[in-house]
Amino acid sequence: MPFHIVLVNPEIPANTGNIARTCAATGTHLHLVRPLGFSTDDRVLKRAGLDYWHAVNITYYDSFEEVKAANSEGRFFFASTKVTKRYTDYEFRDGDFFVFGKETAGLPKELLDQHTETTMRIPMTDKVRSLNLANSAAIVIYEALRQNDFPVL
Amino acid sequence: MPFHIVLVNPEIPANTGNIARTCAATGTHLHLVRPLGFSTDDRVLKRAGLDYWHAVNITYYDSFEEVKAANSEGRFFFASTKVTKRYTDYEFRDGDFFVFGKETAGLPKELLDQHTETTMRIPMTDKVRSLNLANSAAIVIYEALRQNDFPVL
Repeated sequence: MPFHIVLVNPEIPANTGNIARTCAATGTHLHLVRPLGFSTDDRVLKRAGLDYWHAVNITYYDSFEEVKAANSEGRFFFASTKVTKRYTDYEFRDGDFFVFGKETAGLPKELLDQHTETTMRIPMTDKVRSLNLANSAAIVIYEALRQNDFPVL
Repeated sequence: MPFHIVLVNPEIPANTGNIARTCAATGTHLHLVRPLGFSTDDRVLKRAGLDYWHAVNITYYDSFEEVKAANSEGRFFFASTKVTKRYTDYEFRDGDFFVFGKETAGLPKELLDQHTETTMRIPMTDKVRSLNLANSAAIVIYEALRQNDFPVL
């Protein structure tokens, strides 16, 4: 079973492209919740340098509820700068889903409020509002892989 | 003591910009070895969206030897896709230096050959040539922080 990254309404194509590259590098399944801030038309992807798009297992949805309904057996973890528990405080296991919000605003408050048991924060100073989205996803997925001794890598 | 990231001849301003943001987020000192593939003129940085440049402690050098000479007490770890030991196999401690090469070619072979005791690989599938440089730096610095229980964060 792979790990899963869910991006809810990502805005910047280069970030989603970098995350797709990380997914290709780790056998991670990518789930994208529309609306996206960019077209996934082949010509647009190529122009944005998203070379790894076709090396990744990508599924599209129209809402986060659709993601949950289609993967009802999965455990979902929600990244936010506004929660207290660290991503390293969880024991991740193969098949887990890591959910990230849009670059400018993060995940909707309602969604975080519904899942307070599995929210996670990447520790950072107050000098930044957040980390880059692709970096956040890479940090979390590699922590999950490390905890599981890098299956299949 | 902070951690340190050393970029040897980085080529793509957005990557160095993302790494600067990660450094600001973690209190990490950034060391840049010229030539860089971009100007660090304020107008260029602003146009490339490198908003966090001035929140980071950055030092410039003309060679890697200069970095070592100026930080002779430091322990240096060298990232490469061509080595076998994993970054998670090391026990990092505050004050360590993590060295990354240019996007297209990585670190020079001579440099890796001189430091075989402290080279490190981020595990990945053969579907990609490498991870994005900024993601690689984020993964390693957050592993070092995790091992040290996130000092000052």
